[in-house]
Formats: sequence, structure tokens, C-alpha cells
Amino acid sequence: MAKRCVPVTVRWSDMDAFGHVNNVQVLRLLEEVRVHAFEDLRDHGGPSLLESGVVVARHEVEYLAPLVWRLAPVPTDIWITAVGGASFEVGYEIYDDDEDGARTVYVRAATTCVAYDLGTGSARRLSDTERDVLESWTDEPVPFRRRSR
Amino acid sequence: MAKRCVPVTVRWSDMDAFGHVNNVQVLRLLEEVRVHAFEDLRDHGGPSLLESGVVVARHEVEYLAPLVWRLAPVPTDIWITAVGGASFEVGYEIYDDDEDGARTVYVRAATTCVAYDLGTGSARRLSDTERDVLESWTDEPVPFRRRSR
Amino acid sequence: MAKRCVPVTVRWSDMDAFGHVNNVQVLRLLEEVRVHAFEDLRDHGGPSLLESGVVVARHEVEYLAPLVWRLAPVPTDIWITAVGGASFEVGYEIYDDDEDGARTVYVRAATTCVAYDLGTGSARRLSDTERDVLESWTDEPVPFRRRSR
Amino acid sequence: MAKRCVPVTVRWSDMDAFGHVNNVQVLRLLEEVRVHAFEDLRDHGGPSLLESGVVVARHEVEYLAPLVWRLAPVPTDIWITAVGGASFEVGYEIYDDDEDGARTVYVRAATTCVAYDLGTGSARRLSDTERDVLESWTDEPVPFRRRSR
Repeated sequence: MAKRCVPVTVRWSDMDAFGHVNNVQVLRLLEEVRVHAFEDLRDHGGPSLLESGVVVARHEVEYLAPLVWRLAPVPTDIWITAVGGASFEVGYEIYDDDEDGARTVYVRAATTCVAYDLGTGSARRLSDTERDVLESWTDEPVPFRRRSR
Repeated sequence: MAKRCVPVTVRWSDMDAFGHVNNVQVLRLLEEVRVHAFEDLRDHGGPSLLESGVVVARHEVEYLAPLVWRLAPVPTDIWITAVGGASFEVGYEIYDDDEDGARTVYVRAATTCVAYDLGTGSARRLSDTERDVLESWTDEPVPFRRRSR
Repeated sequence: MAKRCVPVTVRWSDMDAFGHVNNVQVLRLLEEVRVHAFEDLRDHGGPSLLESGVVVARHEVEYLAPLVWRLAPVPTDIWITAVGGASFEVGYEIYDDDEDGARTVYVRAATTCVAYDLGTGSARRLSDTERDVLESWTDEPVPFRRRSR
Repeated sequence: MAKRCVPVTVRWSDMDAFGHVNNVQVLRLLEEVRVHAFEDLRDHGGPSLLESGVVVARHEVEYLAPLVWRLAPVPTDIWITAVGGASFEVGYEIYDDDEDGARTVYVRAATTCVAYDLGTGSARRLSDTERDVLESWTDEPVPFRRRSR
């Protein structure tokens, strides 16, 4: 089990005219979770994925229950589902656990990140250190409900 | 061919600190394209999908080339790829065609929309009119490059 | 002294293409601070200004030093500068204090809020309870550097 | 009369949970208007204020009537109200004129822009060309209803 839980703050403005957290803002919350997890890696001696450069190549996101704005941060699990030569896959789950341990899952999502050289503006291979850190953080595939066709 | 082209305005603020249109803002642009296409349906005698209620259940999006901010709107094709009893799938392509007709595709994406009754707060079946309009607007599946696993 | 300090979380996406927290996003941060302070009032037995309804009639904001994105929340003071029959003025200061107590002020701002009846869609008078709470939270005027002409 | 009218596109997502265009997003719309006006200057032989560098030092904004989302762009006047050695003041008015010429003003605002050298990261003097262009675009002060105290 290598999932990390990053509580994320929902802003009042993340709600749209329907009064729920807007589906696009959910991706914004996941960006925040990703940035915090990447910075946390660096604080623990790992490479800075933000500074060495990573770009998003793909998102897949499922909305399972409406997320309602509240002051308390929302627990979000983030983990790695696959590591390739020049890319890796990130999995997420946004949820609440009630007092009896029953979980409401609001969102499941996956992001494909491609290692990027900010200097040359082109894709690059992951370094050995990056790969080691990412592999130690790997867990199950995201259990999506609907599969793409 | 039932694809509609909706030119979408990119805001200066859609750029992030890397100087490209941020990947989350791309979903924001697609929301705008969807809203404009839905309203256009209504103006042509169709139902208002916005007012009768539609929620987003899933997004899949591929980023193929960096989108750079500019004043001129960016052409975006939007079409329907599948119609079910209570949901439908939307496809999109954001692109530029140069003078010789060569196309640069920036983004391909798909959204699963679920018909929703705003009064009762629950899913509903698509009406016959909605289904007719959506089917007349149906075209090929989104030609994603990477398939989810 | 009735200023309250609300630490506010800056998102990575609050930076613009110049690499600083965007001036418009600063207003978004102040909205968050205001919402948190209003909810805090309610938790302490006061009225809910969010639910009984308040609209923004005016903002004045001064940018004194560039605010750079970081993981740690940024301390922000919020207080009331004036209470009228149907409106009140909010003051803010976003800052950092270093170890020696020297303060860097990034932003000073003021917002005029008008009490609003969400049911009738019109302005309303502040209730006695609202006025009492707001007056107990009143402090000095915002010390703006540039005065409007 | 040197006011320019820049129609600005309102996004569906500019609405907040109250169903109106959010007060912070109004500043986002004004940023778009400013960027378009600055780029228009360059297209007509003037300097590029965006590239040579300008930062926002102050905003003052009055909300006079609720702005409701719609597909059609909203006319916005933008002009210069004062030019100094290293800064200038921008005025704006967002409005609709009905068929009889009666004007509904939604927002009036003013922004202080400071000329900035992106290379050295410090304020700079306006060039003669910049000053000439800005002065030719100068018009009346913004007729604010409430004056700051």
C-alpha cells in the first residue's frame, strides 16, 4: 500500500451555478493534490518533478457522487499506477469515510504524466532516482466503473 | 458528417506558469464549446439540454500538442459519438488548419453526459425529441491515440 | 484590536504566465478569507452572512509586493472598518512576518458588502444581531498607500 | 472621445453558486478587455505593453447591477484616465444599451498599471512612444458613484 492521502481545500468559487463543485474544478483540485504530493517527494529527498519538468498527456476522470462545498478539506488518495521509460500514470480517489468506516467516493481519476525537459522543450527519459521513487509509490490500477470503448 | 465547429476564445489567464494553456483550462474551453453547441440546438428548435438538466459523469482527454494563447478563437469540433437511454457521449477536437489544409490537433476529448432532472435531483431518461436531435448530430468515435488499460 | 487572521491556501494555478500570483486571483483568495471568516462567525453563535445573503458592491485593492506561490498558507488579516444600515466595509491585509517580526505586506484591500434578501432579490437592512457581531469585529480603516482621486 | 469598445465573452463558468457573474470574474473579464486593447494598440503601430511589461498596482471596481450570463459578448468601454512618468490609469465600463439607447451599467472600474522591466524585475519609465499612444487614448475620469473615504 503506497497510497498517500492529501487533504485538499475546496474553494467556495469551485461551485458552479448548479451549486455543486464544478466538474472542471475537480481537475483543478487533483492538480493541487499532485503538486503537493510531488513537493512532498522532494522534501523527503526525492527529485523535484515540478522543477525537472512534467507535462500532462492524458486525463480520465469519473464523477460518482456530487461533491458539495464545505470548509473542511476533502481527503484525496494519490498513487502511481504505472511507470514507463519517459512517463508515468497517477491514480486518484476523492472520498469521505463516515464514522462507521463506510466510504463515499466522489471521484476517481487517472493522469498520464510525461517527463519533460523544460530547457529543450522536449520529452526526456525518467532518471533512475525518479523511477525508484515512483515505483516505491506504486499501487493498484484505478478501479474505474465505466471503461472507455 | 454532423460535426459542428465552435470557435472558442482563449483567455490570457488560461495560461499557467509554464506559458501554455493549462491542461485543466482546456476542459473549461470544452465546457464552453458544449454550452454553445447545446444552446445552438435550442435556437434551432431543439430542447434545451442546459435547462432540462445534464450532468457530466466522465471525461477522457488527450493532450497532443501545446496550445499557445492568442487573440483569435481556436476552432473546435464537437459531435455526438453515442446515445443511450439516459446518457450520451460527446466528442471534441481542438485544432488549427494551416493554409495548405494540414491540421495540427491540440486536444481530443470525450465526455459522458447523463440526463438529469433538476427538480427531483435524479437521473432521467432522454426524451424522444432529445434523442432525435442527438442522433442527427452523431458522428465517428473519438480517434484517441492512447487507449485506457 | 478585532482583526482575525485567516491563513489562506494559494493554488499552483493562481500563478499566471509571469510566474506570480495573478492580481485577479488575489481577489479570489480574499473571497475565501471572507467566506471562512463569515462561517467562523456563525460557528460562534453569530448569524450566517452567507445564508442570509450578502453581495459585493465595491472592491478597492492595492498590490504592494509580488506574492509568490508556495505550499504554506499565507496569513491574511480580515476585519470590519465600518457598519451602516444596510452595508458594511471589510478590510484585509495579506502578509508575511519574518523571524524578527518584520512584516512584508503583499496586498491591502477593502470590500463593501451589501446585505441582500436572497428571497426577494433586493437589498435589506442588517439585523441587530448582524450589526452587533460586525461592530465587535471593527478595527482601523485600511491604510491604503494611494488614495483614489 | 477616445474610449474603445471591446465586446467580451462571458463564460458559463463565470457564474457562481448565486447564478450571477461572480464579482471576481468581473475583474477577469476586465483583464481580457485590457489585453485585447493593448494588443490592438500594437497592431496599429504602437508599442506592445504586454511584452515590454506592465504590472497591476491597484484596482477599484463598483458593481452597479447584476451581470447575467448569456452567449452574446458584453460591450465594455476601456480608456486611459491619466498618464504619469512610470504608470497610467485605465478606466472601464461594462454595459448594455437597449433599443432606445437607454444604458444599463453593470460595472465601473479603474486600474493603475505600472510600467515594468521584465528583464531587471523593476519599475521603469514609460517610453515617449508609449506616452504618446496612451495620451491619445485619454478620456474622462471614471464616474464612480461611491468615493473611497
